[in-house]
Amino acid sequence: MRFKLILRFESLLLVIISTFMFSSVLFDLYYKEHVAGYFLEIIALGYILGGSGIILSGKNTTDYLSKKEGFLLVSLSWVVISLFGSLPYILIAHFSLTDAFFETMSGFTTTGASIISDIESLPKALLFWRSLTHWLGGMGIVVLTVAILPMLGVGGLNLIKAEAPGPSVEKLSPRITQTAKYLWIAYIVLSALETILLLFGGMNLFDALTHTFGTMATGGFSPKNTSVAWFNSAYIDWVITVFMFIAGANFAIHVKLLKGKFSALNDEEFKAYTVIILIAVFIVTLSNLNIYHNFINSLRYSAFQVVSIITTTGFVTADYDKWSSIAKMTLFLLMFVGGCAGSTGGSIKVIRIYTLLKQAINELKYNLHPKGVFTLLINNQPIRKNIVYSISGFFFLYIATFFVISLIISFFNIDMITSLSATAATLGNIGPGFALVGPTHNYAWMPYSAKWILSFSMLIGRLEIYTVFVIFTPSFFKK
Amino acid sequence: MRFKLILRFESLLLVIISTFMFSSVLFDLYYKEHVAGYFLEIIALGYILGGSGIILSGKNTTDYLSKKEGFLLVSLSWVVISLFGSLPYILIAHFSLTDAFFETMSGFTTTGASIISDIESLPKALLFWRSLTHWLGGMGIVVLTVAILPMLGVGGLNLIKAEAPGPSVEKLSPRITQTAKYLWIAYIVLSALETILLLFGGMNLFDALTHTFGTMATGGFSPKNTSVAWFNSAYIDWVITVFMFIAGANFAIHVKLLKGKFSALNDEEFKAYTVIILIAVFIVTLSNLNIYHNFINSLRYSAFQVVSIITTTGFVTADYDKWSSIAKMTLFLLMFVGGCAGSTGGSIKVIRIYTLLKQAINELKYNLHPKGVFTLLINNQPIRKNIVYSISGFFFLYIATFFVISLIISFFNIDMITSLSATAATLGNIGPGFALVGPTHNYAWMPYSAKWILSFSMLIGRLEIYTVFVIFTPSFFKK
Repeated sequence: MRFKLILRFESLLLVIISTFMFSSVLFDLYYKEHVAGYFLEIIALGYILGGSGIILSGKNTTDYLSKKEGFLLVSLSWVVISLFGSLPYILIAHFSLTDAFFETMSGFTTTGASIISDIESLPKALLFWRSLTHWLGGMGIVVLTVAILPMLGVGGLNLIKAEAPGPSVEKLSPRITQTAKYLWIAYIVLSALETILLLFGGMNLFDALTHTFGTMATGGFSPKNTSVAWFNSAYIDWVITVFMFIAGANFAIHVKLLKGKFSALNDEEFKAYTVIILIAVFIVTLSNLNIYHNFINSLRYSAFQVVSIITTTGFVTADYDKWSSIAKMTLFLLMFVGGCAGSTGGSIKVIRIYTLLKQAINELKYNLHPKGVFTLLINNQPIRKNIVYSISGFFFLYIATFFVISLIISFFNIDMITSLSATAATLGNIGPGFALVGPTHNYAWMPYSAKWILSFSMLIGRLEIYTVFVIFTPSFFKK
Repeated sequence: MRFKLILRFESLLLVIISTFMFSSVLFDLYYKEHVAGYFLEIIALGYILGGSGIILSGKNTTDYLSKKEGFLLVSLSWVVISLFGSLPYILIAHFSLTDAFFETMSGFTTTGASIISDIESLPKALLFWRSLTHWLGGMGIVVLTVAILPMLGVGGLNLIKAEAPGPSVEKLSPRITQTAKYLWIAYIVLSALETILLLFGGMNLFDALTHTFGTMATGGFSPKNTSVAWFNSAYIDWVITVFMFIAGANFAIHVKLLKGKFSALNDEEFKAYTVIILIAVFIVTLSNLNIYHNFINSLRYSAFQVVSIITTTGFVTADYDKWSSIAKMTLFLLMFVGGCAGSTGGSIKVIRIYTLLKQAINELKYNLHPKGVFTLLINNQPIRKNIVYSISGFFFLYIATFFVISLIISFFNIDMITSLSATAATLGNIGPGFALVGPTHNYAWMPYSAKWILSFSMLIGRLEIYTVFVIFTPSFFKK
């Protein structure tokens, strides 16, 4: 383990993150809420810390990372930036470290679970930083899941590897830079497009940008107390619904579409994702007809909430906790589906569920014909057994982790629905759950220890579980 | 598919089941509630139907079954006896077919979910029949999971195959008869022992037998409205706790113990089962200290309920729905563990969870060392990949089925906790759940369609999911 290499990377990250904070300074100059000074102090601190780290780490380190270094670096990155990113909350709004860390981790993991009760009372610059953590986290996660994790062989994500070489490669190659460039272009183009469309809908630049950040990162932070419901605009609801849907799809597809390769839509995961959404929207829209009186209206609110939950965004336009049981249960189930692999969405992901379903059907056939050979095909490609193994392991660990964290949360005498849905909403990087963490509530009332556990839940969910758990295996720090 | 062979087997089963009904006749002669006549009519019907079936099926059929025939025969058996076993409820207590079928399926699958609100108002002979369905179902399931399903290669149960030959064997061999004999001896010896101990505790023969049936089959039907709580006896609580624990362990171990092979206790699944119970009892006992005032008392009620739920029995001595959140969540989690393979317990089973956990740990190691070879050892035996595959498939199907049935149940506007726990309690063959199907409630209030769906849920849970699902694959009835 070359800790100097890791130090160098984390220091560089600190400098980059600090630089992005200048945008908050700009917003403060416009809104004149006099918090720009705090941001400049934090930026200075970031540059000093980062700069010292880069100098200390020395120059002659290579660009290649081993697997172990990769795992540590990825997990550490989210912790380091969440700690550093907490500073504006602590200095400007006097949050406790627990609350500030929870909010920042929730931002960078694109979860969107909040501990802020009166959001609109905070300075605009701070709220802009809050939403920016989403956008930066989403940017990181796309590159991570499309380019880096597949090479680390995490949770069967090698299924979706695009240009990346096979999982036997031990070093993270510089080819990632190329892949990352395309992904970021797609991310930025789509973000610009949504911002423009939201400006057309009557939003000001601040609202348009922050909601775009929440959408494209499938994060869910809104600078409004009542989330997207505040705007009460069908146009805005539909724009955000469509862009949440886009953000929940594999960005490798978006890159291909931008290059004009429309055959990219002929992807089995994308089709399964679309079909699941259509079925869920159908069920929820019908069950909500009596609440929203007409079909168009019911479709608007139901589609928004279904897409918001399955993509793990967590924006809210309706108090779905008051919906019928079937609608709530549909949303609860979608919490365990999540977006496509290589999207900014979290949770188990469509490709894994799809693969396991195909595998289970093969097992049924195998029960009848034990000598038969049943190949698992996805996009006409046979899937190797060790990838299915990895996905099965991921599924088991996800469900087991979900149950164990729910159990720990219930220890604080928090009711079952709240414990289960708070865990599902943080592990799946969604944000709101049901009951006491429902759409009209937040996580402010939770005991400090519960907040730390749920912050950890966001982190392991975001980094595909394996990435974090691997660090805790006894052999990790051995030679 | 030789339907005549299946007809012959089901007819024989009808004759056997009818014969067992004579015990209800005997109890009626003692309690003089004048329902013996109904039972005699039903027995006569069973003999006529069964006899005709045997004659129609012809004599020259072989004793060997193909895999497909095996699957159909097993699934059909539970449906046929549940239909026939409904007759006493319909004729004597004027139940609807739905209610009678639900109660009988719940009996034969050893679930213990009931639709009867005032149990004690029913004739003793009928209640004896109700509990007897548990005992017979338990008898069937032990043989099924130890001797038959492993050979059909269902859900990785070949892991626990004792004397049975490998999974490549296409025919169900007559060696099962030998294995079955030993298992039944263990089942009968343990049942006799519990009955005697309960008689010592002051129960009459009727109560001792019915509660033994509920215990040994991990069923949970009690002829008392308040279940085991009615007796209010620490001695009875502890006797039943110990025998539920025994019934939740692999009967192949009991057979070996009866033969004097005490090394049988050195089994990894048995140890994991014991450790899980000890941890759960510890958590629940501590969390209940304020309710039951002293440790011994808290231990009594907590241990009873933990063992009752994990073994999927479902007997009740306390209104655990009023316990603290951590205690309830512990019980909810145990609903997904279940007993050991080869026990009368249902749900996912300890061996599967244990195997998947070991496999997940191997995957973590594999992430770090992609070229490493990590063998999965259980009881010092390497586990073949296709068995782990089968278990992964089972786990996914179990969780997916759980979610889908919960969703369907919530369609009847039944709240989330009730929908989720009713599904967990029927799919896992437990009986009581939480909220509206909690320990002081029952399933009587549910709509008819929900009762049929939950009856189906009991069946697929009981028959290890694959057994039933296989029948619905398109190729099943093809040559």
